[in-house]
Amino acid sequence: MGANTFGHHFQFHSFGESHGFALGCVIEGCPSGVAVDLEFLQAELDRRKPGFNPDQVTSQRNESDRAEILSGVFEGKTLGTPIAVIVRNQDAKSQDYSQIKNNPRAGHADDVWSEKFSHRDHRGGGRSSGRETVARVIAGSFAKMLLRQVQPELKICAFTTQISDLKLSSIEKNDFLEKAKTDKGYLQDHFQARFPLKDQNAIKDLLSQALESGESYGAKAEIRVFGMPKSLGQPVFQKLKSDLATALMSIGAVSSFQLGLGNPDEMKGTEFHLKSEAEVYGGIRGGISTGEDLVLEVKFKPTSSILDIAKKGRHDPCIVTRALPVIESMVACVLADHVLLKRLDQV
Amino acid sequence: MGANTFGHHFQFHSFGESHGFALGCVIEGCPSGVAVDLEFLQAELDRRKPGFNPDQVTSQRNESDRAEILSGVFEGKTLGTPIAVIVRNQDAKSQDYSQIKNNPRAGHADDVWSEKFSHRDHRGGGRSSGRETVARVIAGSFAKMLLRQVQPELKICAFTTQISDLKLSSIEKNDFLEKAKTDKGYLQDHFQARFPLKDQNAIKDLLSQALESGESYGAKAEIRVFGMPKSLGQPVFQKLKSDLATALMSIGAVSSFQLGLGNPDEMKGTEFHLKSEAEVYGGIRGGISTGEDLVLEVKFKPTSSILDIAKKGRHDPCIVTRALPVIESMVACVLADHVLLKRLDQV
Amino acid sequence: MGANTFGHHFQFHSFGESHGFALGCVIEGCPSGVAVDLEFLQAELDRRKPGFNPDQVTSQRNESDRAEILSGVFEGKTLGTPIAVIVRNQDAKSQDYSQIKNNPRAGHADDVWSEKFSHRDHRGGGRSSGRETVARVIAGSFAKMLLRQVQPELKICAFTTQISDLKLSSIEKNDFLEKAKTDKGYLQDHFQARFPLKDQNAIKDLLSQALESGESYGAKAEIRVFGMPKSLGQPVFQKLKSDLATALMSIGAVSSFQLGLGNPDEMKGTEFHLKSEAEVYGGIRGGISTGEDLVLEVKFKPTSSILDIAKKGRHDPCIVTRALPVIESMVACVLADHVLLKRLDQV
Amino acid sequence: MGANTFGHHFQFHSFGESHGFALGCVIEGCPSGVAVDLEFLQAELDRRKPGFNPDQVTSQRNESDRAEILSGVFEGKTLGTPIAVIVRNQDAKSQDYSQIKNNPRAGHADDVWSEKFSHRDHRGGGRSSGRETVARVIAGSFAKMLLRQVQPELKICAFTTQISDLKLSSIEKNDFLEKAKTDKGYLQDHFQARFPLKDQNAIKDLLSQALESGESYGAKAEIRVFGMPKSLGQPVFQKLKSDLATALMSIGAVSSFQLGLGNPDEMKGTEFHLKSEAEVYGGIRGGISTGEDLVLEVKFKPTSSILDIAKKGRHDPCIVTRALPVIESMVACVLADHVLLKRLDQV
Repeated sequence: MGANTFGHHFQFHSFGESHGFALGCVIEGCPSGVAVDLEFLQAELDRRKPGFNPDQVTSQRNESDRAEILSGVFEGKTLGTPIAVIVRNQDAKSQDYSQIKNNPRAGHADDVWSEKFSHRDHRGGGRSSGRETVARVIAGSFAKMLLRQVQPELKICAFTTQISDLKLSSIEKNDFLEKAKTDKGYLQDHFQARFPLKDQNAIKDLLSQALESGESYGAKAEIRVFGMPKSLGQPVFQKLKSDLATALMSIGAVSSFQLGLGNPDEMKGTEFHLKSEAEVYGGIRGGISTGEDLVLEVKFKPTSSILDIAKKGRHDPCIVTRALPVIESMVACVLADHVLLKRLDQV
Repeated sequence: MGANTFGHHFQFHSFGESHGFALGCVIEGCPSGVAVDLEFLQAELDRRKPGFNPDQVTSQRNESDRAEILSGVFEGKTLGTPIAVIVRNQDAKSQDYSQIKNNPRAGHADDVWSEKFSHRDHRGGGRSSGRETVARVIAGSFAKMLLRQVQPELKICAFTTQISDLKLSSIEKNDFLEKAKTDKGYLQDHFQARFPLKDQNAIKDLLSQALESGESYGAKAEIRVFGMPKSLGQPVFQKLKSDLATALMSIGAVSSFQLGLGNPDEMKGTEFHLKSEAEVYGGIRGGISTGEDLVLEVKFKPTSSILDIAKKGRHDPCIVTRALPVIESMVACVLADHVLLKRLDQV
Repeated sequence: MGANTFGHHFQFHSFGESHGFALGCVIEGCPSGVAVDLEFLQAELDRRKPGFNPDQVTSQRNESDRAEILSGVFEGKTLGTPIAVIVRNQDAKSQDYSQIKNNPRAGHADDVWSEKFSHRDHRGGGRSSGRETVARVIAGSFAKMLLRQVQPELKICAFTTQISDLKLSSIEKNDFLEKAKTDKGYLQDHFQARFPLKDQNAIKDLLSQALESGESYGAKAEIRVFGMPKSLGQPVFQKLKSDLATALMSIGAVSSFQLGLGNPDEMKGTEFHLKSEAEVYGGIRGGISTGEDLVLEVKFKPTSSILDIAKKGRHDPCIVTRALPVIESMVACVLADHVLLKRLDQV
Repeated sequence: MGANTFGHHFQFHSFGESHGFALGCVIEGCPSGVAVDLEFLQAELDRRKPGFNPDQVTSQRNESDRAEILSGVFEGKTLGTPIAVIVRNQDAKSQDYSQIKNNPRAGHADDVWSEKFSHRDHRGGGRSSGRETVARVIAGSFAKMLLRQVQPELKICAFTTQISDLKLSSIEKNDFLEKAKTDKGYLQDHFQARFPLKDQNAIKDLLSQALESGESYGAKAEIRVFGMPKSLGQPVFQKLKSDLATALMSIGAVSSFQLGLGNPDEMKGTEFHLKSEAEVYGGIRGGISTGEDLVLEVKFKPTSSILDIAKKGRHDPCIVTRALPVIESMVACVLADHVLLKRLDQV
């Protein structure tokens, strides 16, 4: 399988450099007859817009990342053929990058990339740029449309639980989960940072100051999937937990993946197994979903763009907000894939 | 790719139920001309023997898991053809399992498996048993033989850093790492628990008591790869970190995977990036190895066999010791694969 | 996908050298719940026994190729886990091959193989031996068992239509097809050469003389699939016709593959399309099965073993008889695969 | 692997409906550093232009099929990242197809497609249209650029040997082969029909009359590869001959594939093997290239567009001319793939 391809049957092939003509993906293995919601696709893309606006924690519509569907969709439904979607890079040619050509940016992958391929697009991160995640959000949107149709109860929700020393209390978290579970549809909640602290000003203050002082922060996020079907995942090497791990660890800023919350390594068996709560064991046993909520946790390292002189004052002080739709997209792709593969389990 | 297949080019296909006739694997994509070390293969299998012997932390030779090579090797070298290796289950037919047929064991995957496939081998975990890891150790042994020849400086070392409240001090750890780095060959160190606490009796006591009282513990392990080549890993979906994540998260008892040590989520960018130590960032940037040591951490949940009445007094009080060779094997398979794929990077 | 792996979802991984310990395969992607017919498996293996007995065109039971199922089957049904099956080579060590070590056999692939891999099992063809087809027949048997259950009307029938200047007349062929179509089950007809000439002595005479004089013949075979389901095959690169082509052209002795009979290249469109008979267009349109009978034709080159001094008097004067079960097996694997994949076409 | 993906390591993912916005492909596994020749890419696309012009057998430049490279190429060289290339459909929206919506065209795959996917783009063949081959020619062009650099002696040449009762004499053929072999580069010979009959008017006459009378013809083509490297192809299921078979049989109009010329099925072993000429055995033994010229033959069925009332007077009377660049492209993709895979054969 190609190095830019994700998935077993529901697959997508990601392409595009951060400063090339366009980015996008080709989705293969999506069945025919899925209702295509263009507004939803665009809303998902808008959630991962670049830049942080300290005056509002909510996203502002970014007109530039406009999805163009080239194939695979006709009269509002998927055809069962490859779905090609692109997003153009608007300022691909407009800047002068000659000075950074021979100066790989510290903290980025510029130098390892040059070493590996000898020839590199020096105008930006190329494929190692966070901009590549546009392809993932496109694929994830189609995965969610498929899931909406075949698994209508299923709902994927990623949210921030910690940035620096700001941590969600268990009351704040439970309130959020209650609301998230009962909310209708996938579209809800596009316009918030998804860090449901009561004191939203504390977040603004922390990130604004970081922006000013050239600092960045790591973060922790949790993923919940409500309405999980049973029997997703295959034994041994397509365990649901290992497919989710590769999905999320393939995101640049993610350093760590955990199934379930807390510290399983510090627990006793009598505690761990007798509790038998999804929060502890994560909703997967023997690699296969049990039907309980899926509970995952990922850690983000602090962004490296603080080291990038060119981005002074425009860097992302914490990547987590923009990363949440990417995380949800990758989880959706894994689940869509396994929902289809489940059809092949029994004769 | 099959659900029981691991790897991109250097692949193995795992097969076998815990209570069937045999387990094993077929290794594809191993080049011709690799020197085959049968003694090493057997020693690796011996490292993952079942059962914990409280009188000695070291392993005892387990004659029963004897590797039989069926194909792909001739006159001491690989042929470039599939390498099939099996290990027979000696007592496959000897027990009476009829009473557990309709009583799935708590904490195991018996019930989710039955739900998924409707037909199940009720005589044990089947494919969800830890016994399946025999196939991984076989494949890992061949991966190590390949690496030994093409990347002779490379050395993979997994060790325990914590069981319950027994934690390695930084002095103990540094002493161990120093010794591990300078030790020759891959065969070293087969006969210790790889938890280099000064007070080895504390480990014995903890585990012996757990065995008696029907308790089990989670654990934490660290993986170091010394002598790492640069440029391993592919961008986007075959990042070295995501391939390692899926490799290790596919092991039943592993709950968590992290690249680098510590808490990246709680760090500031100025700390994280300016340090730029392999311990912190893990030796991978942009998904690609930098040539520094690889540093990974995994967490194990406590074993569920405490809930298995049939195993009373024979359960594994902590899986980590037996899991270390499995972890090293999976890492070796990932690295062997990427060492080969690197040949295709440039024209 | 590995070079020794066949299939998209219903896959098998073939292994084993002609003079190693064992040959066999691991079947992945076979759903759970398929009834396993051990007698049928053995009968299929017996159909491809080596050697031609001039006194009888029918096969004689070859006790030595005995299938051993190592995994994936329990209490008479598949488990949904990998099915490993081996056949031992009985005289693996008994012969002295030292003299042919440095004398690659003319007409065989010995020299190209040595060039490619530098290290070769000189005791026989290794993987390029016809003995490798044992793995295909095993996998094909399981594919037929699966098809029997999910597509009970489907029946695959390969038969010889020409050896040297002995050709089937259209009367002989129609008689045979009529009988084949109405015959029950898959087991029928194991004990005939499947070259339904009226004058069976002519075949015996031709082949006996060839055996004596050190001659061999090419041949032509036809494959019919009765009871074909509609909608098998995927557009573009998993067209049913291209998957069948690669399946059959992967057999050593097959030189040519055709969809439909006759000479499509010499026909006019008004003839070809207006007739619209399965015999002409083969039962596949746009790469997808139409539900009419599948009609394929393959040509075999004459066996090269006439050039092998060691085989003097024991060579196969025409490979077609032994090849028929291999052909049927490969067709069965393709159809089983597509019958499963069809479940993923629509949402 | 996806149903619209071709290749093992050098892969391409084809997308696009005949009447959608764009067609194209994403090429994965192309190493970095391949010199990109845009003029060549466009010339290859021009060779497969639709329509037959009876006044000239040579192609006329078709400005409309203009390749746009979206990613993977920078400053004239490949980056080692996915190469996305699209060709827009210019009149995607301009026609009124409502009348054919419920009238599947005879001889086309419209009805089987509707049956399979239930939802279909009724405005044309969709993915079953010959227009899909644009993607193949794009991928093939990059494969040829790669081969040009790593295997500069290699030259792929497909040519017509028969249309209806017009057949190439052996003198005509040998003259052509001599010229083809000594010609420089890949660009040569774009502007002829590649049916090197002396009497070119006979071809014009035949096809002009067919155009007028609504007739179409099947054809035969031969493929020669000069300057073949040894050791391409893998044993068993990635034999060079089976990979070539699936490559060429995946083209809509191709009904038959043969390795080597003539009638191997009617030959005696003593003739076939003792001759040992590439023309007879095709340049592949045991599935692996011997270093001699590759010799392949394919047969085309007559085009079905004669049955398409909408195309009256504009149909292709014989597809072979337009198919030759597609054939060469598919062969180039197979060879580029195996040239890379060969790097992994030995330790």
